[in-house]
Amino acid sequence: MVYNNFMKKQISDKVINRLTLYHCILNDYIKKGEEYISSSQIASLLKIDDSQIRKDINLLNNSGKSRVGYITKELKTSIETTLGFSKNKRAYIIGAGNLGMALAKYDNFANYGLNIISLFDNDPNKIGKEVNNKKILDIKDLPIYVWQHFIDIAILTVPSQYAQSTAKFLVNTGIKYIWNFTPVILDVPDDVQVWNENLMGNFLQFTYNIN
Amino acid sequence: MVYNNFMKKQISDKVINRLTLYHCILNDYIKKGEEYISSSQIASLLKIDDSQIRKDINLLNNSGKSRVGYITKELKTSIETTLGFSKNKRAYIIGAGNLGMALAKYDNFANYGLNIISLFDNDPNKIGKEVNNKKILDIKDLPIYVWQHFIDIAILTVPSQYAQSTAKFLVNTGIKYIWNFTPVILDVPDDVQVWNENLMGNFLQFTYNIN
Repeated sequence: MVYNNFMKKQISDKVINRLTLYHCILNDYIKKGEEYISSSQIASLLKIDDSQIRKDINLLNNSGKSRVGYITKELKTSIETTLGFSKNKRAYIIGAGNLGMALAKYDNFANYGLNIISLFDNDPNKIGKEVNNKKILDIKDLPIYVWQHFIDIAILTVPSQYAQSTAKFLVNTGIKYIWNFTPVILDVPDDVQVWNENLMGNFLQFTYNIN
Repeated sequence: MVYNNFMKKQISDKVINRLTLYHCILNDYIKKGEEYISSSQIASLLKIDDSQIRKDINLLNNSGKSRVGYITKELKTSIETTLGFSKNKRAYIIGAGNLGMALAKYDNFANYGLNIISLFDNDPNKIGKEVNNKKILDIKDLPIYVWQHFIDIAILTVPSQYAQSTAKFLVNTGIKYIWNFTPVILDVPDDVQVWNENLMGNFLQFTYNIN
């Protein structure tokens, strides 16, 4: 849990995660032209308790509560404001393999304030090409690029064996946030934050109860 | 939190997630020929508290504790036994796009007991090809395939607009577990379990404290 400033409420990771799931459902409802949604409709889709959902939503300002349910558009905006989607973050992807390409194509990120500017790779066959309007650039040019652009986040999708050396290279260019999709635990200085996208951890949480 | 049987200890999602991160570090240490690891070495890589790590490891049987630290190989095996890596699960990937391909190539899954058998797609240009020794099959053949093979998990990586209809199709073939990589909340019967790989939720947890 973190405090960003005095205005920001303390919201736990679990709640943040659920709020983004409600946000997905709201997108869908709004697309279908639904003006209202009830906590029990959300509960039945996510198979979690009604009261939990109401509790989460109560953390938001202007949750759009009305007599016939929450107003879909207001609740959606409220989640966006609370979680800070409006504060845009700029990112680049390091490694234009299948995973890097998949993330570059994932347009949903922009809806949440994550703008992927470009990709970097060392493969001459990839450098210069475009994916989803994002150029694949030469990794050698990264230091100059970081110096020219203000970039918040590096998304690391290189093969495992290059993860640590690439992380070291990123740190030397001045990057402070790494979203790590490799299964390697990176050794970085204390002022660099790494978020490990721990797919195996997630998988094991899921399958822990499959016999 | 779930109970699987009388033998299984109750382990929370957060602990499962951390144990898999320790497992990644142990793999790396063993590869480098290190026989021992201390909780403070793990702590410094993950930037979490020493005491937390010791507490997590105390949940394991035969943690490999010695006077000079944990025995890397024993601790690794202990994590594997506790989290049930040895119970193999069979899975197929629905959607042979970049994300499906990336997951098919991710050999690390097999180390954790997840065996991806094949991929399914409806694109004639993809059907019949192979990725990482796994065949891409015609989605039309899925019902017969599920009937012939015992498959635990469907990994859903289709474009968002096909997510719900594909999920319905999967449910009709009898699948009970869906690992959902699409940003759509799936409407499925109560006896079907969905794990939403909520990339945006993860991203927002990470960036919540970036100003």
